[in-house]
Amino acid sequence: MNDLPKEIHIKEEGPREGFQIESAAIPTSHKIGLVNALSQTGLKHIQIVSFVNPKRVPGMADAEAVVAGITPVPGVHYTGLWLNQQGFLRALESKRLHMEGKLTLYASRAFLKRNQNRTPEEQLAAQPDLIRLYQAHDVPITTGFVTAAFGCNFEGDVDPAYVVELVGTMRRIAADQGEDLKIIGLGDTMAWATPEKIKRVVGAVRGANPDVAISLHLHDTRGMGLANAYAGLEMGVAHFDAAVAGLGGCPFAKHAGAAGNVCTEDLVLMCHEMGIETGIDLDALIECAAMAEQIVGHPLPGKVKTGGNLAALRSALRTTA
Amino acid sequence: MNDLPKEIHIKEEGPREGFQIESAAIPTSHKIGLVNALSQTGLKHIQIVSFVNPKRVPGMADAEAVVAGITPVPGVHYTGLWLNQQGFLRALESKRLHMEGKLTLYASRAFLKRNQNRTPEEQLAAQPDLIRLYQAHDVPITTGFVTAAFGCNFEGDVDPAYVVELVGTMRRIAADQGEDLKIIGLGDTMAWATPEKIKRVVGAVRGANPDVAISLHLHDTRGMGLANAYAGLEMGVAHFDAAVAGLGGCPFAKHAGAAGNVCTEDLVLMCHEMGIETGIDLDALIECAAMAEQIVGHPLPGKVKTGGNLAALRSALRTTA
Repeated sequence: MNDLPKEIHIKEEGPREGFQIESAAIPTSHKIGLVNALSQTGLKHIQIVSFVNPKRVPGMADAEAVVAGITPVPGVHYTGLWLNQQGFLRALESKRLHMEGKLTLYASRAFLKRNQNRTPEEQLAAQPDLIRLYQAHDVPITTGFVTAAFGCNFEGDVDPAYVVELVGTMRRIAADQGEDLKIIGLGDTMAWATPEKIKRVVGAVRGANPDVAISLHLHDTRGMGLANAYAGLEMGVAHFDAAVAGLGGCPFAKHAGAAGNVCTEDLVLMCHEMGIETGIDLDALIECAAMAEQIVGHPLPGKVKTGGNLAALRSALRTTA
Repeated sequence: MNDLPKEIHIKEEGPREGFQIESAAIPTSHKIGLVNALSQTGLKHIQIVSFVNPKRVPGMADAEAVVAGITPVPGVHYTGLWLNQQGFLRALESKRLHMEGKLTLYASRAFLKRNQNRTPEEQLAAQPDLIRLYQAHDVPITTGFVTAAFGCNFEGDVDPAYVVELVGTMRRIAADQGEDLKIIGLGDTMAWATPEKIKRVVGAVRGANPDVAISLHLHDTRGMGLANAYAGLEMGVAHFDAAVAGLGGCPFAKHAGAAGNVCTEDLVLMCHEMGIETGIDLDALIECAAMAEQIVGHPLPGKVKTGGNLAALRSALRTTA
């Protein structure tokens, strides 16, 4: 009937996605507390900060302090995000982060211009230098990521064939420098995906790249986050980014373009209920979601934190029966 | 690849589901205003009130006034909900409602006891009288509905074979009275469904009843509302209940068991983007969602009302290109 994976790997992006978007200043100790709590849930990969210009993203000005303050749990990869060489060097400098090189291409010329003031040609030309920078610091290059792979608020629909072309280009550039991308990430940056589009794009990318794993980065701006994740699972996708409590955007605010990653505990419950392993303790994760909500001081969009864990309900029913 | 329907039929339940659960008193004129606005969106079926005990559900004490106050649009079916003969007679008395007889069986003994203080045996025994009541008033009997068809907070998982048995029983009781159920509704009353469970139960019911249409009533309490709707669409389901703005429950309140129907405008956007017709003007519906939020005076969970209509974005891009 379908090709559901037996287990999936979740990259938790809540601390990074969430705290960079919040308008109120969040104490560094609260950020550290959430990361430490998330570390106890079974999550194996937590992206905790971004190294970006503190003038543009004041919420991330304490990135170094957050990294220095956490209590790392063995086996958990803590990572950071950067957008340029300066950010990469800050991440490297912190010493405590798991360093992974990532190549990124935008599927939307308009969004690339808007975000990075670059043309696609300039973007391509910059990749070999980036690879050499990673290589010079012994940072393995594992992932190629396509931003706006399903559509763009500033350009409209994206042709799946163009996404396939970008993935091919990225892999070729990597190969030219002796690197082999193991994971291709597809970003629904502005929430243009539908379940059918997920299937079409994943199918097209996999058809041309049967040897790589595909990862999905889904935003819930139009409510289809979990439906899109399910379509990905049906296609055998086993790598997902997600954000505890749906951190990263408030559905009632107007930043429609960037709001709300798919919620980690909602995704985990759906997977567990369908027999897909995540390695995560859902009850512990739900406590983290409640903690995240307390930290930001306003309701966050995840549902399971109020709707409740079905497995816990089942246990309670067995006990009282 | 799948069996998506070309078009779907949505029964809007927002006014009924929503206003009965709100704690603040909502002026009758606001309820009427929302129903009138919904009537202009292309929706063909709007459930506007329930005829229940005003002592137990004060928010529905003005049911008659709402029915009397609306401006009916030709071609739109306005319906009400009732739980007993008294409620049915009140609905009939109002004269302006489209009357449809519905049989309901609970798939959970515990939930039936809790809600109606009845055993399954008593419930079955009551059906022939109910059918004769409808027949005596020339009300066509179109639908059989299974409550808690996917699981129950008070009893746990429900065996799909039991749902199939209940559907068979309902159809047999109807046939014994000369009636033929055309639609079987499956209610995920307490949000135990997953996309895979939707497929399993819909597949089992359809296997035994290839001649009836299946309708899904989905709650979004655990965030899987749209994912479950998508699984239904994949199975060719073409009838859905939904609530504008996700009226019917607040995700941040603690009524976890009853919270939040799948949001109409989110479902409509997903369908339109996948090429499935709904007959609904999404922009007009989004305005109704904003109106609903104003009426209840707190955020409602639907996403598209802030996330935005992709078709509208596309048009705007074409205009500026």
